[in-house]
Amino acid sequence: MSSTTYDVTTWTIPGSATTAETDIGAVINSIIADIKAQQSSQQSKPGAVISIPPGDYALKTRVVIDVSYLRIQGAGHGFTSSSIRYNAGDTTNWHEIWPGGSRIRVENTDGAAEAILIHRDGDPRLSSIELADFCLDGVSFMPDENSYRNGKIGIRSTTATDSMRISGLGLVYLERGIVVVDADALQITNNMLCECGSCVELVGSGQASMVNDNLIGAGPWGFSIFAEHHFGLIVAGNNIFPRGASSIHLKDAANNVISANRLHSFFSGMITMEGACDRNLVSANHFLRNPESFPVFQDVPHPQDDLFGLVHVRGSGNTVVSNHFSFEVSSVSVQPAGATPTLVLVASGTHNYIATNHHAADVPVHAVVLDSSTIDTKVLDCGTAAEFAAFPGATFGFRPTP
Amino acid sequence: MSSTTYDVTTWTIPGSATTAETDIGAVINSIIADIKAQQSSQQSKPGAVISIPPGDYALKTRVVIDVSYLRIQGAGHGFTSSSIRYNAGDTTNWHEIWPGGSRIRVENTDGAAEAILIHRDGDPRLSSIELADFCLDGVSFMPDENSYRNGKIGIRSTTATDSMRISGLGLVYLERGIVVVDADALQITNNMLCECGSCVELVGSGQASMVNDNLIGAGPWGFSIFAEHHFGLIVAGNNIFPRGASSIHLKDAANNVISANRLHSFFSGMITMEGACDRNLVSANHFLRNPESFPVFQDVPHPQDDLFGLVHVRGSGNTVVSNHFSFEVSSVSVQPAGATPTLVLVASGTHNYIATNHHAADVPVHAVVLDSSTIDTKVLDCGTAAEFAAFPGATFGFRPTP
Amino acid sequence: MSSTTYDVTTWTIPGSATTAETDIGAVINSIIADIKAQQSSQQSKPGAVISIPPGDYALKTRVVIDVSYLRIQGAGHGFTSSSIRYNAGDTTNWHEIWPGGSRIRVENTDGAAEAILIHRDGDPRLSSIELADFCLDGVSFMPDENSYRNGKIGIRSTTATDSMRISGLGLVYLERGIVVVDADALQITNNMLCECGSCVELVGSGQASMVNDNLIGAGPWGFSIFAEHHFGLIVAGNNIFPRGASSIHLKDAANNVISANRLHSFFSGMITMEGACDRNLVSANHFLRNPESFPVFQDVPHPQDDLFGLVHVRGSGNTVVSNHFSFEVSSVSVQPAGATPTLVLVASGTHNYIATNHHAADVPVHAVVLDSSTIDTKVLDCGTAAEFAAFPGATFGFRPTP
Repeated sequence: MSSTTYDVTTWTIPGSATTAETDIGAVINSIIADIKAQQSSQQSKPGAVISIPPGDYALKTRVVIDVSYLRIQGAGHGFTSSSIRYNAGDTTNWHEIWPGGSRIRVENTDGAAEAILIHRDGDPRLSSIELADFCLDGVSFMPDENSYRNGKIGIRSTTATDSMRISGLGLVYLERGIVVVDADALQITNNMLCECGSCVELVGSGQASMVNDNLIGAGPWGFSIFAEHHFGLIVAGNNIFPRGASSIHLKDAANNVISANRLHSFFSGMITMEGACDRNLVSANHFLRNPESFPVFQDVPHPQDDLFGLVHVRGSGNTVVSNHFSFEVSSVSVQPAGATPTLVLVASGTHNYIATNHHAADVPVHAVVLDSSTIDTKVLDCGTAAEFAAFPGATFGFRPTP
Repeated sequence: MSSTTYDVTTWTIPGSATTAETDIGAVINSIIADIKAQQSSQQSKPGAVISIPPGDYALKTRVVIDVSYLRIQGAGHGFTSSSIRYNAGDTTNWHEIWPGGSRIRVENTDGAAEAILIHRDGDPRLSSIELADFCLDGVSFMPDENSYRNGKIGIRSTTATDSMRISGLGLVYLERGIVVVDADALQITNNMLCECGSCVELVGSGQASMVNDNLIGAGPWGFSIFAEHHFGLIVAGNNIFPRGASSIHLKDAANNVISANRLHSFFSGMITMEGACDRNLVSANHFLRNPESFPVFQDVPHPQDDLFGLVHVRGSGNTVVSNHFSFEVSSVSVQPAGATPTLVLVASGTHNYIATNHHAADVPVHAVVLDSSTIDTKVLDCGTAAEFAAFPGATFGFRPTP
Repeated sequence: MSSTTYDVTTWTIPGSATTAETDIGAVINSIIADIKAQQSSQQSKPGAVISIPPGDYALKTRVVIDVSYLRIQGAGHGFTSSSIRYNAGDTTNWHEIWPGGSRIRVENTDGAAEAILIHRDGDPRLSSIELADFCLDGVSFMPDENSYRNGKIGIRSTTATDSMRISGLGLVYLERGIVVVDADALQITNNMLCECGSCVELVGSGQASMVNDNLIGAGPWGFSIFAEHHFGLIVAGNNIFPRGASSIHLKDAANNVISANRLHSFFSGMITMEGACDRNLVSANHFLRNPESFPVFQDVPHPQDDLFGLVHVRGSGNTVVSNHFSFEVSSVSVQPAGATPTLVLVASGTHNYIATNHHAADVPVHAVVLDSSTIDTKVLDCGTAAEFAAFPGATFGFRPTP
């Protein structure tokens, strides 16, 4: 085996009886210490790959990644629905009850919230960290397994990174799945990120990143995908399930693209723009809003009412074109009662463009609503005149679907 | 090597001389039996990874996967065109004549049709099975290598699954490539699925699945991608070649999305909706219909004539926007003779929306045709008035391209 | 270890002291010779996998791949920004200064330009070569590290290939990253291809290929993605950064699709069609054009002026719909001075269709301009009448945004 190839099941922490089964975090930290010892010259620090074979591993100590070019690689994303299991009643006859694959149970005893922390001060930014094909399992939500709360974070970076790649992971029952600050050229693809409070949070700032081809679904109080002050983000080809409070949430984010996704939610605000979100494109996406079907969550208060918009535009110069909206909610469930639900709300800004979106709805809806503060919005071929509403003061160009 | 890591070339079936070369199916089944013996506690069943190094392996016995979290992983999709080879005449001087990589020759002698069967009764559903980076080769089509018929199935599940992942495979010369019943959160990505009778069939029902970024092409009597009673499927980023009877076929399927694909076919019905297909989105796709160029298949009867529509809409509330259609067929080849070919046929339903599609055609075409039964279709900016046809009784809004 | 599984760090070249560290090219060529010796029968040539663990490897001798089904696989794409580093001044306190992962330093002493050459005469075409998860580093640009010139090519094929797959690579500081002739069913996905003169060049001809989900950015004199005489190419889900002379460049290419990408450039010509480019689709993409922010490149002459169009259409029957354009250039920077910048220029051809594109611009722009030679272009809902310009002789249908 190459000196840059490690296996958590064969690594021995010097002077310790800890194993990957008892604390994979301590084992990985010991490996990282070895990498740093082996690669002490600035001239050659190629990093290493740490393999995690399929198995059940406890993580008691947070992993701290402070070297570039580290790949941690499992051999199975191992997702199964813990939500179904915990709410299934008697499971004594079930074949299995836990997630699997290269499964890391996040059970920190070190006081840290994170399973994996990525952090390094100084220059350059950490580059090309790769996390692939393993499972981070938060195991349990307090107190009833349905809260989406346990304080656990799967992966968190707290200093800027370049060209990080997160792929093939399975995340389940974490309060926060992935939290990345100041990302540049981050790639999050082909992951299964479900039954976490929030799934992907790109915080602080970011640029030129990619969240493509994932299966994602957060809890009703969290974000499936959140991006703050991000510029040049692409979100494409994802299948975003319920039950996130939003599906994609942009905050003060400009020049991003959301194309060719499938979004399904139990709430309005499926795409929420918060603050000043300018010049973003939302195109060729399918939106389905219908009611929660899982009894245990049917009483969850909606984070926003049906006037908020399935797409909530706040900012200027945004483009919302060629999308489909299915609104499958009976009139008695609409909030506030008696309201006409809104599909696209332009809540602020100038020069937004909403065109060629089609909808199918169980109740009369407003395809587009313009706040009174909005200026020069264009609304084209999105429905009839009766399906369009502009508050007094709004200026716009409108063409009804013939 | 970890106890959860197996290699088909080093595994010995107790009391048997069978090897991976002589029957990889028997070897994998023996490994699965070992996994079950090793992981007998409901509390910990993380599964395993079975590696298939590059090599030529016969499969005489069907693999039966009845454990979750099993990854079977090769090191090469190994596709080559058997169709070209079989029709090439003398190949004695060819460098190689067969597919390769981690190549499994599907040569069942056990009476089963499948190379790999996924089946388990009881709870929970099988989860997180991963099949990656190997080749399933059906070797031959009867009787002349061009029938796309040999009764062989690559991968078939007959009970519901959750979060299965199929990636990086090469499938060739199977009558049916992948047949999955009742899929939930299935991911089929980055595969090379060609020269199979049918490639991907999602049958029974399904939800929240993904077929993205594949290279796919079925035979003239089969499906490239078929989805039945599926809800929340995304089909994005695929390159779908000929010569399937259809490129994407939905049956009684609602709320799915087909975006950002490239489709090429020798027949109409490139996207076919059968039964009641409601509230689906078809956006940002490129369609090319031209004639079969490979002499051996030029006499294949067309599965449907040119009035069927390149996109055949049957159902309500569907959205077909921002697509491009190239129709490169000479007038003498149009079927029925003398007909004006149809690009989008709305065959049934209410409230469908067809807008902002452009076409380039070698003959006069109807960009959109409405059946007499259709109600309230919208047809906007898809061509001239002469390129639009509505049978008596149809109701619609129409705006010609200026 | 299987006989088809090789590791560059353990392979010994017969009679030579050369190692992977001193010349990984010679080592891989020796392995390929062994594969050919081991697999001499036409009946069974499954190929092999060659692993490259993380490490720093010099390549002095060009790798020549002339066998099908070869996978060369690393364990880390290893990108870091050499451009930032070389222009950073004193880096003595930096943690590391070079790319990493499975890093191959391209330092040919054999007179060849390529790190990896793919070439075989005779039949069939080379099939299913897979290159994954390693780094090709050109190390240095002459003379000042900012020229994007060093004569080095990462991967080049000079004979036709089928079903090649290039994924997960990191390419940096090569004059040309990937150059593939006559590709069929080529898949280039999930790569990090940056700081190369040109990144992806599909030359000669090609069909049915895919460039999806990559992070790409070329130098100011090169191509991020170039495709010549290509037919049936899909370019989807990519994040294409500056600073390429173009982002996507088609030459004499028909029936291709560019959907759901994010494109950012410092120049016009982001999508350039050269020669006769017919019946292509450009849909659901986000375009951002703004000024170069990195001081060292701010004086680079623009390859074309702002009248060239962010999208430059040359050919017939093309469709440009549902895109967003952000033009964030101050009036003093517009070239030629005083000009009104063009977003979409239809430079030639008949029957092109430009619809439902929206823009946000810092200066007055022409959303669409038609050359006098153009015939029957349709321009719908792309802006006001003042934002549209047609040279005398052009014929068109035009509808301003209401």
